[in-house]
Amino acid sequence: MPDLFAGVDLGGTSIKCVLGDEQGNILFRHSIPTESHSGPERVLQRIGQAVQELTKEAGQKPVGLGMGVPGLVDVPNGITRFLPNLTTQWIDVPAAEILSAHVNCPVRLLNDVRMATLGELVYGRGKDVDSMVFIAIGTGIGGGVVIDGKLRLGPVGAAGELGHQTIDPQGPPCGCGNHGCLETLASGTALAASGIRLMLMGLAPHLHDRVGGDANRVTAELMADAAKQDEPVMDAIMQAADYLAIGVANAMVTLHPELVVLGGGVANMGDILFNRIRAQVKQRVRMIPPESVRIEPSDLGSNAGVMGSIALASRDAF
Amino acid sequence: MPDLFAGVDLGGTSIKCVLGDEQGNILFRHSIPTESHSGPERVLQRIGQAVQELTKEAGQKPVGLGMGVPGLVDVPNGITRFLPNLTTQWIDVPAAEILSAHVNCPVRLLNDVRMATLGELVYGRGKDVDSMVFIAIGTGIGGGVVIDGKLRLGPVGAAGELGHQTIDPQGPPCGCGNHGCLETLASGTALAASGIRLMLMGLAPHLHDRVGGDANRVTAELMADAAKQDEPVMDAIMQAADYLAIGVANAMVTLHPELVVLGGGVANMGDILFNRIRAQVKQRVRMIPPESVRIEPSDLGSNAGVMGSIALASRDAF
Repeated sequence: MPDLFAGVDLGGTSIKCVLGDEQGNILFRHSIPTESHSGPERVLQRIGQAVQELTKEAGQKPVGLGMGVPGLVDVPNGITRFLPNLTTQWIDVPAAEILSAHVNCPVRLLNDVRMATLGELVYGRGKDVDSMVFIAIGTGIGGGVVIDGKLRLGPVGAAGELGHQTIDPQGPPCGCGNHGCLETLASGTALAASGIRLMLMGLAPHLHDRVGGDANRVTAELMADAAKQDEPVMDAIMQAADYLAIGVANAMVTLHPELVVLGGGVANMGDILFNRIRAQVKQRVRMIPPESVRIEPSDLGSNAGVMGSIALASRDAF
Repeated sequence: MPDLFAGVDLGGTSIKCVLGDEQGNILFRHSIPTESHSGPERVLQRIGQAVQELTKEAGQKPVGLGMGVPGLVDVPNGITRFLPNLTTQWIDVPAAEILSAHVNCPVRLLNDVRMATLGELVYGRGKDVDSMVFIAIGTGIGGGVVIDGKLRLGPVGAAGELGHQTIDPQGPPCGCGNHGCLETLASGTALAASGIRLMLMGLAPHLHDRVGGDANRVTAELMADAAKQDEPVMDAIMQAADYLAIGVANAMVTLHPELVVLGGGVANMGDILFNRIRAQVKQRVRMIPPESVRIEPSDLGSNAGVMGSIALASRDAF
């Protein structure tokens, strides 16, 4: 059997663990709840156990492990810096070293969206391109930048934070401390908040029906469905698309990539979102031929992260 | 004598021509008026003559020539695409080929601000850095992006158009066809327009005195001077600085460069501008340590362009 590599995607609520080969084939997979309240030592120990179970199943140990984490990481040193969706206990944790002791192989960390970018670059939509911008629109908005065939991380792995571009100087506060960021205007969370507002104001009766009036159940996906009947919901989605288009357009004039890939749950809205974004980008981008840049959905979907982790574990990726 | 290289900076009103060595020393220089109404053939012929005069003076022919042009160029093919400050006759002109026939040496073209970026990278502020963003704030706002020690141009040389980031979704129209671009909010032209407005409204008596009430004489530099007494003029400069800070902050979260260099006439305002930009960037950038990125004035000033041209002519720069 060829060498196996472990891929881990550490999320706020669940952790995906896989074993796969260098070609990105996922051969064994297992998910566990995050239980982030138990602290980093315990979470990393449980990841180690999950990988050991996969090892038993495969009858073979992984020779390397890559782990995507939701936040900022010191990539060269494998230290988590700031993971806003977990707990503050994760500040300055040498997670690569700790996990490495549990799994007995080298461990490399990367921000989860940069990891998904790597997945798309090596195995997915970006396989044949030299330059690409990836934007994941989910609970938050993250990104990754590929230039001349390489993921570009900056000195500590923080380059690509496209969700924290300021899009509206007078916009609402963002979780990061700035205001008017793309994330606070157009993430799945921002969209859901708009949908809830419309529902509470009595302007979204079909959305109301779909969630039984329960604000906790409003998601971007349900909004896309309700938008066919609730015009104000459609307006809210178009508004978010226009902000996303500005984020895409700004990345385009800055870098002129061949390809922009949009992933994350919100991108699952499909044509309703992509058509508006493409049209608005054409309005915004005048200094480069907008048709020279393709804007496409993710190819790997929710596997992009773990496949990126396999890519990182199996090669010299940067 | 060592090899000589020619550098040309083609501007809207004048053309700078120099001969220099590989170390960036400018040994001979000459300026001629652009006379862009005479058309590209004639302008390129006159540049050829100017270079020949410098050649006579030096007693030696250049072995290569680099020319910065104000607008979009197809870099691999040496063709001018769109030079908004010259005439529409410059659309799709094989300027490198034409000029090469006049000067009997290879000619390479580049957007003028990308050329200045190269100058700062090879000989100036960026000599010792791996990653840098250059923003030139003058009549318009241009830029250049350096990653892993190389100027990154994208497929045709258009990457780095940082002045055409959308900063205010509802902002005023920009010459490029978009609206709310950084250029239309914070260029020298935008600043002068704000100053003229204040003067006409009777809100800038000291600016009025300095220019004798002549709107044509209002410049960003004179506004910086008048701002010591005219508070509304100071407010206008601070507003422009805040927009510039957003442009800088967006480039920072996208690329996490070590260094941001601000050049062009408006940057000559110095501390009044830089202090405000640095403070605002600190407010905006939360996802990377803002102190990890230096924001500095240009080192080469108005020589950055021709020195970049020498760099381009004398080495494999990309």
